[in-house]
Amino acid sequence: MNQYSGSLQRRTTPPSRSRGRAAPASKPPTARGKRSREKILRAAEHVFGRKSYTHAGIADIARKAGVALGSFYVYFPDKRAVFIELIDELGMRLRSHLAAAVGHIDNRIDTEIEGLRAFFAFADEHRLLYRIVREAEFVDEPTFRRYYARMAEGYVRGLRAATDAHQIHAPDPEALAYALMGMADFLGMRFVLWGRAKNREHVIRAAAEFLRRGLTPLPRNRGPAKLTVLRTKNA
Amino acid sequence: MNQYSGSLQRRTTPPSRSRGRAAPASKPPTARGKRSREKILRAAEHVFGRKSYTHAGIADIARKAGVALGSFYVYFPDKRAVFIELIDELGMRLRSHLAAAVGHIDNRIDTEIEGLRAFFAFADEHRLLYRIVREAEFVDEPTFRRYYARMAEGYVRGLRAATDAHQIHAPDPEALAYALMGMADFLGMRFVLWGRAKNREHVIRAAAEFLRRGLTPLPRNRGPAKLTVLRTKNA
Repeated sequence: MNQYSGSLQRRTTPPSRSRGRAAPASKPPTARGKRSREKILRAAEHVFGRKSYTHAGIADIARKAGVALGSFYVYFPDKRAVFIELIDELGMRLRSHLAAAVGHIDNRIDTEIEGLRAFFAFADEHRLLYRIVREAEFVDEPTFRRYYARMAEGYVRGLRAATDAHQIHAPDPEALAYALMGMADFLGMRFVLWGRAKNREHVIRAAAEFLRRGLTPLPRNRGPAKLTVLRTKNA
Repeated sequence: MNQYSGSLQRRTTPPSRSRGRAAPASKPPTARGKRSREKILRAAEHVFGRKSYTHAGIADIARKAGVALGSFYVYFPDKRAVFIELIDELGMRLRSHLAAAVGHIDNRIDTEIEGLRAFFAFADEHRLLYRIVREAEFVDEPTFRRYYARMAEGYVRGLRAATDAHQIHAPDPEALAYALMGMADFLGMRFVLWGRAKNREHVIRAAAEFLRRGLTPLPRNRGPAKLTVLRTKNA
């Protein structure tokens, strides 16, 4: 159990369906159906990321996915629905990727550092992620907020557990979760998306040092204990 | 001199003009001209923020500003030009606001904490800022990057100076600048824009504690100095 897995299990409700067109059957029962749905989502990621939601058409997505236009409508009622599903799916995919990367680590500070490295790798693999998520704010704001809120939920649980285990000092786990998410987001934007001017490992090491110092709990019985030790030594 | 003022002085080149329509005279010489330009920019902030760039029209902006459509074109060649100018102006305004808020502080860590408080106030005052800046990525990506890069430039200078003065520990000032900008951005999004569920001061105090611990330089000659003091006291 780590900080991300809770969020993963949490996602039991289907993403909200867009209005207008009546929703067709949305649960493909066959393996082939699942593959088609996955192909459409990956094509949507490519097309929305390149063309933007506004300029992308369902025909572009179907063409990129290699499915007939009619098949598209078997899985999604309209452009908005596939976009919303894509955001939810990318969020889930990212959380799952991070969970897998840090699952073996039982120290929270190391989890943060390894999580940052894993986030960089994900952002590099899904280079259109930033644009797609940012555009969600204009397409469907609740979806945009849900993307971050779901990530924060699991994060808060993880930080709280680590605080209880005296692994970190976090007086406000929710504030800390958003602070750490913001750090990772901006570092990924600057050092993964905007170019490789700088050694990425150097950035991770600098961030790791900042995190380690910022999060390490102070010793629980500090001054007096030290004094005692020193007195003994000096005696 | 603080970390933001450099960026302010830096902005000597006019924002890039959009293509297409020939640019009319863009420097209003009169005080009245300046006021009109300012009115148009504030109206643009409102209209772009509410309607989005895509759905906003020049007529909406002129109406909101209380100027004739013809007057709009005295100051800006088209919608894109006023949008780009608005982003640059909002960035400059934010940097100027932060510079004024922390100008009297000579300790870098306190500057960070007070800067976060000032950023929250600015985000509260300009609640459409986030949407407008995010949409810039889709309207004109160089403008979007410039918004953050200009902020980072001054930031890096400030962090470097504070490192030289042994006020903070910052092994990679540029990485730290983006990390701190991301923290502020996400905390403002969650705790200023998305609601007042939580006492804002509580968030600032939690962030302050994290920053203070993360940034404070380790004592340069640590153990021995302490030992000496304690020896003296115990002698």
